[in-house]
Amino acid sequence: MIIIAGSASPELSARLAKHLKCQLVRPELRRFPDGEFYTRIGAELKGEHALVVQSTCHPQNDNLIELCFLLDAAKELGAARVTAVVPYLAYARQGKRFKPGEAISIHTVCKLIERAGADDLITIDVHHEEITRNFSVPAYNLTAMPLLGRYINGLKFKAPVVLGADKGASEHAKQVALEMGVDYDRLEKQRINAEKVVIQPKRLHVANRDVVIVDDIISTGGTIIEAAKVLRNQRAHSIYSACTHAVLAGKALQRIRSAGIRRVIATDTIEHQVSVVSVAPLIANAIH
Amino acid sequence: MIIIAGSASPELSARLAKHLKCQLVRPELRRFPDGEFYTRIGAELKGEHALVVQSTCHPQNDNLIELCFLLDAAKELGAARVTAVVPYLAYARQGKRFKPGEAISIHTVCKLIERAGADDLITIDVHHEEITRNFSVPAYNLTAMPLLGRYINGLKFKAPVVLGADKGASEHAKQVALEMGVDYDRLEKQRINAEKVVIQPKRLHVANRDVVIVDDIISTGGTIIEAAKVLRNQRAHSIYSACTHAVLAGKALQRIRSAGIRRVIATDTIEHQVSVVSVAPLIANAIH
Repeated sequence: MIIIAGSASPELSARLAKHLKCQLVRPELRRFPDGEFYTRIGAELKGEHALVVQSTCHPQNDNLIELCFLLDAAKELGAARVTAVVPYLAYARQGKRFKPGEAISIHTVCKLIERAGADDLITIDVHHEEITRNFSVPAYNLTAMPLLGRYINGLKFKAPVVLGADKGASEHAKQVALEMGVDYDRLEKQRINAEKVVIQPKRLHVANRDVVIVDDIISTGGTIIEAAKVLRNQRAHSIYSACTHAVLAGKALQRIRSAGIRRVIATDTIEHQVSVVSVAPLIANAIH
Repeated sequence: MIIIAGSASPELSARLAKHLKCQLVRPELRRFPDGEFYTRIGAELKGEHALVVQSTCHPQNDNLIELCFLLDAAKELGAARVTAVVPYLAYARQGKRFKPGEAISIHTVCKLIERAGADDLITIDVHHEEITRNFSVPAYNLTAMPLLGRYINGLKFKAPVVLGADKGASEHAKQVALEMGVDYDRLEKQRINAEKVVIQPKRLHVANRDVVIVDDIISTGGTIIEAAKVLRNQRAHSIYSACTHAVLAGKALQRIRSAGIRRVIATDTIEHQVSVVSVAPLIANAIH
């Protein structure tokens, strides 16, 4: 087994190679003067099981094309099996047509990855589970929520409560909470009157408790910033945020911190300064 | 028939729609805050023959992904036939393995375009003709050289001579020259001694003649800049450069002009300020 490290996942690739006790290959990747990518895998792959590890975070299209080049090259260089490890799968939130005429971009992305040569695919906490069904090759979606729960447990929070950021994140919150052995609930948008909508916990009280808002992706941080206001009014002790994928577009992290959220805790599906939990053991376990 | 204008080919798309007297659709294309593309084709495509016109010039990967989204969306929206019109095909110079382990990037690019939904493909002066054989759907390579020749003829040059930029460009030079009814030759690298290599015409004399150096692509302009020095020493009257694809990476155009080349003449396969010859009639003719 050989790990081929894509440029968006250098740390995760190294961690995964360590877990799997296998060779780590860092391909030669550069740009020609006109902007085209140059890709060279400097390793013998004949008969090997090659794992191409490449997140498709920003810049999504560049990372996706690099992934496709690496998959195809691994195949052409004689790898017996090529597994695409795409910890963060771009375009997963564009999985249905909201307005007529829209592209369902994730459909295209899945086709491209498969056509490039993936014999199977591993991804983590993909935004909609059913996306894996777009592949005709085996595609596995793993969840990092228990790993996040274990990490947060080590932080010794005060009477912690876990809140899913919305209905879609309820299951994520549940898994974090189960690992921690604590209460969970979810945030809900409630219409107070004609003008006013508040986001608040559906059931539980947060006064004097440490709150962890859980979601799969934090992108602009809009929801958790709104929720933080209410949670502070409800006298939450401290507010934290946990997610698998730290997309954190633009100045999102700065705005989240300004909103009084003490810390964002994320995994290394996207390699960001807040990515303190590695999904390497999770992937290694799925491979074995 | 409906033309869907990709963002890299807005002018060519409009010209093509005019030539074909058919509807021009400009899709809604924007970016989400995290950088993902949003793509919407706002037109009824059911049963139609859709032509997606999108060059894959710089930024190559973005333009390629947009092309794939448009092809797939056109297909999913019910178009009976989807033709990919890719006037400049990126990665066409990466068509073989120079060092072991290299990705043959154009192979991957062809797979992706086909998988995205192209029923057939039209491209112009692709760097290696045999690239069209990578497609299992019909793929046509058209040449813009006669159009360039016709345009240059209108410029009333002084005793013009056409030079292919290298051996690979000989056929291009021949076609330009045949259209103009003038002499042609090609540039050749000649080793003068252990230290010195010059680039000069293989056969013809250029003294007091207007010289047109022809190539498929001008990227950095390295060859023609070198050649210009020699041609000036040989007392060429004026030196021009003509190509199909004005890649002109970075400050290439500036350096070409500083080298004493009076003008670069290109087509609109890449929409650049020097793109004065439209390939729209060529494509329209191939469609009909």
